[in-house]
Amino acid sequence: MDYDSGNPFARILRGELPCVKVYEDEHTLAMMDIMPQAEGHVLVLPKEPAAELFALSDDGAAACIRTTKKVAAAVKAALGSPGIMVAQFNGAAAGQTVPHVHFHIVPRQQAAPLKPHASAQADIGELQALAARIIAALDGAASAS
Amino acid sequence: MDYDSGNPFARILRGELPCVKVYEDEHTLAMMDIMPQAEGHVLVLPKEPAAELFALSDDGAAACIRTTKKVAAAVKAALGSPGIMVAQFNGAAAGQTVPHVHFHIVPRQQAAPLKPHASAQADIGELQALAARIIAALDGAASAS
Repeated sequence: MDYDSGNPFARILRGELPCVKVYEDEHTLAMMDIMPQAEGHVLVLPKEPAAELFALSDDGAAACIRTTKKVAAAVKAALGSPGIMVAQFNGAAAGQTVPHVHFHIVPRQQAAPLKPHASAQADIGELQALAARIIAALDGAASAS
Repeated sequence: MDYDSGNPFARILRGELPCVKVYEDEHTLAMMDIMPQAEGHVLVLPKEPAAELFALSDDGAAACIRTTKKVAAAVKAALGSPGIMVAQFNGAAAGQTVPHVHFHIVPRQQAAPLKPHASAQADIGELQALAARIIAALDGAASAS
């Protein structure tokens, strides 16, 4: 998959499209997936432009997994999820729909079926409320450390 | 999920159980999954003992994603897979079956169904043949760089 600087995630990173943000640092952005596979589904993006993991620098990949680890812990705490699935798809054959690397953080309840990837758009107000709970968990973790 | 130093991956890392290895460095080991969800399914483990991503150090997580990136590129080249899924499960509710952090690298063909996680054991000779192809692709990438 080739990089296209007009892709929606590149536009979000440039501030041209809105997102429901939960975390941002120098190298990464984390936001609510607007077509969640489960309640609390978050995406982590590198700011570095790369379509697939193979094209991302080692430093960019390390920044992504560091943010994924931090935000996944906050999602788990905020939603009381017993399980957290982390997934990253490369190529349309693997389910990738946007040509900018992203890591999915998907809360999992025992035996709860996942919605198909990118199937239905969520209510933005509900996403904002979930984001607020995740941000509170991130703030709690930061003040405890 | 708590860490248990008697888990099968810890035993593989200590050399007490065999594995079909494709890559190893100071911090990580990559091996064929013996219950593959698709042909060419590889697991990447940190040598650091941690049950879930949350318990792994940032350096350990960075080492895992660096190895995952490198080995995933070799799997893609060796198998000619149009897609590569990377997945990492935390907690039984998310599908985690061994309490030692591991990243799945799963080749994806368009529309090919995935086998269920950890359902059927593969033929070890076939895994060794796949490993040899992936190792050749790793060697090719190393000599080209």
